[in-house]
Amino acid sequence: MTSPAATDPLVTLTTDFGASSPYVAAIKGVLLSGCPRARIVDITHAIPPQNVRLGALALEETTPYFPAGTLHVAVVDPGVGTDRALIYAEIGPQRYLAPDNGLLGSLARRTPPARLIRLAEREFWRPEVSATFHGRDILAPVAARLAAGLDPARLGPPHAALVALDDEMVRSGPGRIEGVVRAVDSFGNLITNVEQRHLAAAPIDERLRVRCGPHETFGLFRTYADQPPLTLMALVGSSGYLELAVVNDSAAGMLGLGIGARVRVDWDAADSAD
Amino acid sequence: MTSPAATDPLVTLTTDFGASSPYVAAIKGVLLSGCPRARIVDITHAIPPQNVRLGALALEETTPYFPAGTLHVAVVDPGVGTDRALIYAEIGPQRYLAPDNGLLGSLARRTPPARLIRLAEREFWRPEVSATFHGRDILAPVAARLAAGLDPARLGPPHAALVALDDEMVRSGPGRIEGVVRAVDSFGNLITNVEQRHLAAAPIDERLRVRCGPHETFGLFRTYADQPPLTLMALVGSSGYLELAVVNDSAAGMLGLGIGARVRVDWDAADSAD
Amino acid sequence: MTSPAATDPLVTLTTDFGASSPYVAAIKGVLLSGCPRARIVDITHAIPPQNVRLGALALEETTPYFPAGTLHVAVVDPGVGTDRALIYAEIGPQRYLAPDNGLLGSLARRTPPARLIRLAEREFWRPEVSATFHGRDILAPVAARLAAGLDPARLGPPHAALVALDDEMVRSGPGRIEGVVRAVDSFGNLITNVEQRHLAAAPIDERLRVRCGPHETFGLFRTYADQPPLTLMALVGSSGYLELAVVNDSAAGMLGLGIGARVRVDWDAADSAD
Repeated sequence: MTSPAATDPLVTLTTDFGASSPYVAAIKGVLLSGCPRARIVDITHAIPPQNVRLGALALEETTPYFPAGTLHVAVVDPGVGTDRALIYAEIGPQRYLAPDNGLLGSLARRTPPARLIRLAEREFWRPEVSATFHGRDILAPVAARLAAGLDPARLGPPHAALVALDDEMVRSGPGRIEGVVRAVDSFGNLITNVEQRHLAAAPIDERLRVRCGPHETFGLFRTYADQPPLTLMALVGSSGYLELAVVNDSAAGMLGLGIGARVRVDWDAADSAD
Repeated sequence: MTSPAATDPLVTLTTDFGASSPYVAAIKGVLLSGCPRARIVDITHAIPPQNVRLGALALEETTPYFPAGTLHVAVVDPGVGTDRALIYAEIGPQRYLAPDNGLLGSLARRTPPARLIRLAEREFWRPEVSATFHGRDILAPVAARLAAGLDPARLGPPHAALVALDDEMVRSGPGRIEGVVRAVDSFGNLITNVEQRHLAAAPIDERLRVRCGPHETFGLFRTYADQPPLTLMALVGSSGYLELAVVNDSAAGMLGLGIGARVRVDWDAADSAD
Repeated sequence: MTSPAATDPLVTLTTDFGASSPYVAAIKGVLLSGCPRARIVDITHAIPPQNVRLGALALEETTPYFPAGTLHVAVVDPGVGTDRALIYAEIGPQRYLAPDNGLLGSLARRTPPARLIRLAEREFWRPEVSATFHGRDILAPVAARLAAGLDPARLGPPHAALVALDDEMVRSGPGRIEGVVRAVDSFGNLITNVEQRHLAAAPIDERLRVRCGPHETFGLFRTYADQPPLTLMALVGSSGYLELAVVNDSAAGMLGLGIGARVRVDWDAADSAD
């Protein structure tokens, strides 16, 4: 095996441009023109248009799995062409380029950024910068330079703090937790914002009740195959979040629920303390 | 040209996670973390959820075209978290990692596997294995180790035999063949399970009748352009299977037919023996 | 940084096979079997079936951003199996393999090809060529040979001229320009065929009127954020074409318009000459 030093630099892309968009291909072209050795991995281009929250969630769910030092370029940018900042961030062992609009907010809430730089030095940008496509004209050429070894300090001045992500928080008290559905995966599973740690004091058997809309289910299961087909069930999914699933079918479809639906978990706190 | 030994290892992915799913990106991250040199090629992530048959078909149609030694990771896994086995298989010159649920069944029916190993050695897995995402927690890290050169014998004990694929078989007799539509491609062509070899004794001219639902067409053509626009026609497609096509339009759309539709081919056997 | 000579060859793919089609994977397998070092970048596989015009547009919008010498393979080929030519073309610093059916027409109208070769030497093709899938059986193996360094002159004889693209031209006169919507992007923006240069004599303020269907808007803006949400606006987009957008929403959806819709721009030419 070659040494890690011999490995070509990894750059990932996360956008709301739509799968197979020519905008994505233009970014790749600019990136490879600036750093022909770069290896590009698509995280997703299916973030709903301008949905910064879901972009933040996708980055949180995927980028920590990549090798240390990977550069993640994220473009969900409803404020393109305004004075919102474009930034370089180091969060844990990963590196990011993104607009400062909350897109890195989920990640930064878990691990405060070790370094934040505002992109300001135009010498690293394309000579002509359009007003509507900074992904191609600023982020891609800057990513190419970073991938080729540029010191991030040369990109611009330090950036004080990230804009916070405006998303729904989990509320909890003795014997109850309230959250929302944050995402629906391709199997129709309803992924909530309630984390494993919120459930630390809760029982996992039938004393636990999970409600979503007019529907309810009891107990937490380990995997989908633990219940019969077409049964509504709750479990903590592979990303560490509470989810509602219908075995062998789509929970979103059968329940008619989706992103934003309220989820309530409750149990007899006195009882569980026995 | 460099020698094959200098080429970085190829790993393909086939899943039912949906295009641009964060689950796919998590698998890529784990794979690249374990083997930074790996080159990843997406075969498809659009297998309909938990549809093992269509996953098997996609692997059969695509993986034989890859360079010898390519490692193909396939995740269509309705039984995740149960005691179904995860296996390493060598079929022809290709290598596979998949659940043993029929997913390799189409391939194995054509070429018996030369080697089958059951994944059992947890030292090659992620330290914490979720109950719902073995693609990320077992298959991806094992793929990384194999790509980096690990001897497959270290993954676990030999595995006796693959679970057979539960799919529709072609039935034939003198002057007739019965099959089903196995797939619909993006042009709307209806791809059946009837193979070129089943048609060896059949005439290719208008004496041959092909019926699907209430529709029928006569003769086998060479390519779509051999008939006028909007004509229903039959041909043996590029994968070697009988297909029904409507020139410059979608056969699935115009005929209102899809996967599972019965296809009957007949001709005068006495006549064709003349 | 390694020298450019050390970089593995880049090959891009543009097809109408649909995202995640097994046909795309088969092409990649053949390509990598012939040139294991090739690095493949997907431009798009979402060209509407057999829509040569939109394929030509995608190539024009994306391929010029790639490094010089990149080989672009394009397969939108309604005439597969007929006597239409398959060609190798050099246009600017980029290289192309495609059917000669207008697919390279948008590119060639801007920059006349420096070199055109008709693919004729079967020794570089797959031994068995199907009648319906020349992307896999001819273009992919030829791309592999080119990527591995083959002299294009060996592929066949010179090709006289490209088939012209049959698309809508912009018409203009004093104080008026008439064009059509050529594409709708994933944000619902209506991208027209009217170029920046057509607008050279036009005012950019409210004296300029842009009409599309029964809708009209005045003035040209710099970026989407320059108008309030849900406002219809016109701007010259990042590809250099006039587009109609609805701020924070889909212009295509709100106006009920799409590809082929007529766009008229007018202004008081006498006035603007002041």
